[in-house]
Amino acid sequence: MVVSKSWTMVKHFDGEPKPEDFKLIEKELPPLQDGEILLESVFLSVDPYMRPYSGRLMKEGDVMIGSQVGRVIESKNSAFPVGVYCVANMGWTTHFISNGKELNPLPSEWPESLPRSLALGTVGMPGLTAYFGFLEICNPKEGDVVLVNCAAGAVGSIVGQIAKLKGCKVVGSAGSDDKIQFLKDIGFDEAFNYKKVGSLEEALKKASPEGYDCYFENVGGKFSDAAVPQMKDFGRISVCGVISMYNDAVPPSGPYIQPLILFKQLRMEGFIVTRWKDRFVEGQKQLLQWVLEGKVKYREHITKGFENMPKGFMGMLKGENTGKAIIQV
Amino acid sequence: MVVSKSWTMVKHFDGEPKPEDFKLIEKELPPLQDGEILLESVFLSVDPYMRPYSGRLMKEGDVMIGSQVGRVIESKNSAFPVGVYCVANMGWTTHFISNGKELNPLPSEWPESLPRSLALGTVGMPGLTAYFGFLEICNPKEGDVVLVNCAAGAVGSIVGQIAKLKGCKVVGSAGSDDKIQFLKDIGFDEAFNYKKVGSLEEALKKASPEGYDCYFENVGGKFSDAAVPQMKDFGRISVCGVISMYNDAVPPSGPYIQPLILFKQLRMEGFIVTRWKDRFVEGQKQLLQWVLEGKVKYREHITKGFENMPKGFMGMLKGENTGKAIIQV
Repeated sequence: MVVSKSWTMVKHFDGEPKPEDFKLIEKELPPLQDGEILLESVFLSVDPYMRPYSGRLMKEGDVMIGSQVGRVIESKNSAFPVGVYCVANMGWTTHFISNGKELNPLPSEWPESLPRSLALGTVGMPGLTAYFGFLEICNPKEGDVVLVNCAAGAVGSIVGQIAKLKGCKVVGSAGSDDKIQFLKDIGFDEAFNYKKVGSLEEALKKASPEGYDCYFENVGGKFSDAAVPQMKDFGRISVCGVISMYNDAVPPSGPYIQPLILFKQLRMEGFIVTRWKDRFVEGQKQLLQWVLEGKVKYREHITKGFENMPKGFMGMLKGENTGKAIIQV
Repeated sequence: MVVSKSWTMVKHFDGEPKPEDFKLIEKELPPLQDGEILLESVFLSVDPYMRPYSGRLMKEGDVMIGSQVGRVIESKNSAFPVGVYCVANMGWTTHFISNGKELNPLPSEWPESLPRSLALGTVGMPGLTAYFGFLEICNPKEGDVVLVNCAAGAVGSIVGQIAKLKGCKVVGSAGSDDKIQFLKDIGFDEAFNYKKVGSLEEALKKASPEGYDCYFENVGGKFSDAAVPQMKDFGRISVCGVISMYNDAVPPSGPYIQPLILFKQLRMEGFIVTRWKDRFVEGQKQLLQWVLEGKVKYREHITKGFENMPKGFMGMLKGENTGKAIIQV
């Protein structure tokens, strides 16, 4: 008999998520039926989207949404033998039963030497978010100047490296000196610690006096106020996230951007990565290849212990991670 | 000897343009050189763009920017015989000399019965603005719900009719009951007087409870605050103008739209019609054909007398016109 532990959201977050918003529950899992598989979570993902989508998709008391790399530990389904690793989307939970339909086994070319946690990061949803959200919406051309914020995060760090592979100049903003060093290590042309610059406007101007062709937006709010006016004519803005605004119950106000959108003929588009789900295999193959060739580097911020998952989540929202935030069970 | 009259901008507009901001000047024109043509303005255009671009393109004392339909009254250029009508971009002026390079003769298929002023409206720049700005950016599909504001204006009224030709449902907002009647006459499915509705949100919801696929933006500001939240997922917003904000020296603030852009996966793009100048002939041909077939109807708001041109301009900015605002010399 297997006991599964899960983290639930006791009540909807009010501003920043707090420890008391989470509750650990236990549940006995039933014996497997024919066709079913039992998996244990080995790595779990904590991502910014969980903050806004907790309000959109969850009721109070629900298990927190999210995905994991699980290992098959018992199987009554010959397609998923014991020992196989799969990405699943079963929420913050240690053990789960599946009929296999929603499981995505790691690609067969995945080498033993590569951490399987990357299937939740650079070669997983955040990597695909960077790949499609940047290439399809920013439509970068060789020589373009690209701005990325949350640049040391799971998505931003990949966007910057893909931009370099496409021949762009890349400017990144992040929130610690360690992150800035990381950005320089992975090839960003310019990087600044937004917490230390006196003026964001000045920092952006200094990094690219000619302005920006592409802007991959993870932050919103005041960062956007400073960045949009520095777009070049016909600039493209890909809105991937607005992490600075997720804790606001009422949308805050800032200067209207429509006059800039108009006079600079800018294009701004928001996206959710699942719109490209028919092309995920293509994206994952490319990302895996780049990682194996050393063209895309990664860093992970691993929190050990399932019991520390809320802490890892809250820390990620505060920017404590460099690279992908992962929970290792 | 010909005396040309022109309206100059005495000083940069501070808020709403005022009568004392304009000054009428006179200038003697020199005799024609070989290859030159003398034209008199028959119709002149007043358009919203003149307000923001006076600050971007003009120095104090310059002749106001703008275009006209001119008639050749003297010619030393065999390509432009006396009596030919051309669209020119010579500013607010009654007579001007050209070498022909910047002149666009009216299309040869222009029938005698059609007012030549339409070359400044439905079959001119505003028509092309509607044609390309709507079709290329909103990418309308049959059955889409389309929202247009300033819907009774030179551009908005054409956008709505093109949307109908493409099989869309069209909702228009305008600022007088006369305008609303005009919108109904030209085929808008829904139209409301934004000055009379208690709540813009409610009016927009009532006109299309399911929301909007396309939004052709001429207004900005509070209209945008009400409209963007009512876009459907994957909606497209074409930013053609922000007339509510042209008089603001400092950009005003409103709720950030980035969260909506993100979660609804909206695309917002601004444009200036000259980006499609290589395709103007195609657009003009199509618009002229639609007008001649009665598929696109027009209305003009004609102010008589060159001396009244500032008044016509100020009135247009206040929305006194239904259809294209034209000055008839």
